[in-house]
Amino acid sequence: MPSGRLEAFSDGVMAILITIMVLELAVPHHRGHGVATMADLRPLVPVLLSYVLSFVYLVIYWNNHHHLLRAAPRVSGATLWANLHLLFWLSLVPFATAWMGENGFAPHTLALYGIVLFGSGFAYLLLEITLMHTDESISQRLLAVLDGGLKEKISMLLYLVGIGLSFVQPAIAGAIYVLVALVWLVPDRRLEQAMVD
Amino acid sequence: MPSGRLEAFSDGVMAILITIMVLELAVPHHRGHGVATMADLRPLVPVLLSYVLSFVYLVIYWNNHHHLLRAAPRVSGATLWANLHLLFWLSLVPFATAWMGENGFAPHTLALYGIVLFGSGFAYLLLEITLMHTDESISQRLLAVLDGGLKEKISMLLYLVGIGLSFVQPAIAGAIYVLVALVWLVPDRRLEQAMVD
Amino acid sequence: MPSGRLEAFSDGVMAILITIMVLELAVPHHRGHGVATMADLRPLVPVLLSYVLSFVYLVIYWNNHHHLLRAAPRVSGATLWANLHLLFWLSLVPFATAWMGENGFAPHTLALYGIVLFGSGFAYLLLEITLMHTDESISQRLLAVLDGGLKEKISMLLYLVGIGLSFVQPAIAGAIYVLVALVWLVPDRRLEQAMVD
Amino acid sequence: MPSGRLEAFSDGVMAILITIMVLELAVPHHRGHGVATMADLRPLVPVLLSYVLSFVYLVIYWNNHHHLLRAAPRVSGATLWANLHLLFWLSLVPFATAWMGENGFAPHTLALYGIVLFGSGFAYLLLEITLMHTDESISQRLLAVLDGGLKEKISMLLYLVGIGLSFVQPAIAGAIYVLVALVWLVPDRRLEQAMVD
Repeated sequence: MPSGRLEAFSDGVMAILITIMVLELAVPHHRGHGVATMADLRPLVPVLLSYVLSFVYLVIYWNNHHHLLRAAPRVSGATLWANLHLLFWLSLVPFATAWMGENGFAPHTLALYGIVLFGSGFAYLLLEITLMHTDESISQRLLAVLDGGLKEKISMLLYLVGIGLSFVQPAIAGAIYVLVALVWLVPDRRLEQAMVD
Repeated sequence: MPSGRLEAFSDGVMAILITIMVLELAVPHHRGHGVATMADLRPLVPVLLSYVLSFVYLVIYWNNHHHLLRAAPRVSGATLWANLHLLFWLSLVPFATAWMGENGFAPHTLALYGIVLFGSGFAYLLLEITLMHTDESISQRLLAVLDGGLKEKISMLLYLVGIGLSFVQPAIAGAIYVLVALVWLVPDRRLEQAMVD
Repeated sequence: MPSGRLEAFSDGVMAILITIMVLELAVPHHRGHGVATMADLRPLVPVLLSYVLSFVYLVIYWNNHHHLLRAAPRVSGATLWANLHLLFWLSLVPFATAWMGENGFAPHTLALYGIVLFGSGFAYLLLEITLMHTDESISQRLLAVLDGGLKEKISMLLYLVGIGLSFVQPAIAGAIYVLVALVWLVPDRRLEQAMVD
Repeated sequence: MPSGRLEAFSDGVMAILITIMVLELAVPHHRGHGVATMADLRPLVPVLLSYVLSFVYLVIYWNNHHHLLRAAPRVSGATLWANLHLLFWLSLVPFATAWMGENGFAPHTLALYGIVLFGSGFAYLLLEITLMHTDESISQRLLAVLDGGLKEKISMLLYLVGIGLSFVQPAIAGAIYVLVALVWLVPDRRLEQAMVD
């Protein structure tokens, strides 16, 4: 299968995820005294903050995923399923985001958010490895630019630390998730430099 | 109509189905004592398992559907409607999935899931037959590679067995649905081998 | 603006409308005695029937809209807004469908469904007229094949009859809406014959 | 990154936003006496009016955004994030629209709607400025046609006035939001004239 079709499909799924996630922000139903005021929106603040973080994460995946698939002109059956495995984890992001936001970053919800981030990161690494096994020439190029997936592995380690800290120091766990996002905000120069688009 | 447009439309619908299905995973609203914990997610386990199975089924359809439409450069009005008939059945998958998951694989819900799988399988076979009647040359090629739709017919028979067993041996019914998915996980080599993409 | 971009946008919107409409089929929440059974699905029958009808209508619009836009290589600002006006009416179809289905085809809901069909038909006719005013050469071709929009005008007349009958003979109103859909099921040969795709 | 990919992604997100916004129109659940009547729809009138206004706003962004991105053949990382910042604000429009509509244009909800419009306008101006810094040649062309973003800045000033008036003269605040939409309804001739598509 040409990788273009898989990329178009993945792009579609990620665009839907990003958009619907924000759309799920539930409109507060004002009950009781008087008219609706901005105060009714206060419980939504943690939800909105969670959405901003997940929005950034999903865009990072959308951006890097594109560079990765470009490295291979055609994809095998294994790559197809490795890619869908990634999309499945990413499609759990909105759920974990909403649960975390609606419960004001409660320890268990922070841990689940970290688990979904870890799963997504692992699925991404798996996709890279699968792509490397598809074609000898791709393998060499990818291997050279990815440093054996060093950045991916460090991120996964940080997610694990965040999951553990969720139960003892929730604030630090949250800070770690934000930190990893910031590190990835910089587009993956390794791939950009090594390949002609 | 060129088949490319129909394929793009079908791809769009299937991407939406796959994505939204997982997005519909309802965030549990914690009521009562203390903060949210992972225990609140326990009722979601059967729902998530159902989603994984349906995710795999929808991806299989997305993948095979692509190979099928590629066999025909242009589609007739009959093919258009046969294709939309298939999409209608597939669009019922999220409903059957959610109903089955939320009711912990209760007999009737397992049966309905099997009915929707059967309907989708039947609609797919119908699409194959319609495509064969469009063009003499396509007909010969498709006929040769599909063995008269043998795999499709066996699947439909297994769905029927699953529907029947839902009421007596629900566990076996579920196992059959999983088994058929696994059989189809292998991409349709028949089509891939016989045609140049 | 090249018409291709407007067509891609309209295709996207219509694919979303068609898919989400069916996805909105609410899973019945079983309350009370025993496990979920097929009997719980009985209230959904009118809803599903409504969805099938709207599914067919939306697909018809998707199909004919494509042929119409193909007639013009470029679109003006007026055509852009005429097209968006059509999309707005079409986006009300899922609402009218759900309201009609959930209330078992009550008179007022049948009338509203007819009003939305009438609005969509009117918007489509308006789009045809706007396209004809864009370019002299298109005008002649469209005018010749559309017979001055005769089929569109008869449909709109039938919708009006349906709206009126909703309050006295609901069954006949529903039958009229089905009848118009059947008439349009036949792809618009007028356009297909007159233009090279 | 070629700007085409960013445009396709943005188009997808905006198509989803526009469609889902209208789809979220909640079907009124008739409670109590007798059958459903048109009277049940009365509370939906302000909601529908809000949707029409936001529909027009989102289409204006979709249309002008296209012309803007066309000005640059390639986009930098900064442009990518400026664009996503715009999409984030736009994705808050459905929320603000629903909240305003469901509360019958209450002062606070009108103010929030204005804030989201202001944020979107600001994000759009930021995107223009970022694009200008990408490439010297683009900068000159954009600068010439946009008059330094005069129209954007006046709109933002009007939004600010609207936000302020929401608390004292809600009707005038609403009128201002409608007025700005009307001003932008006219496609951005500045860009169209200056560039060959």
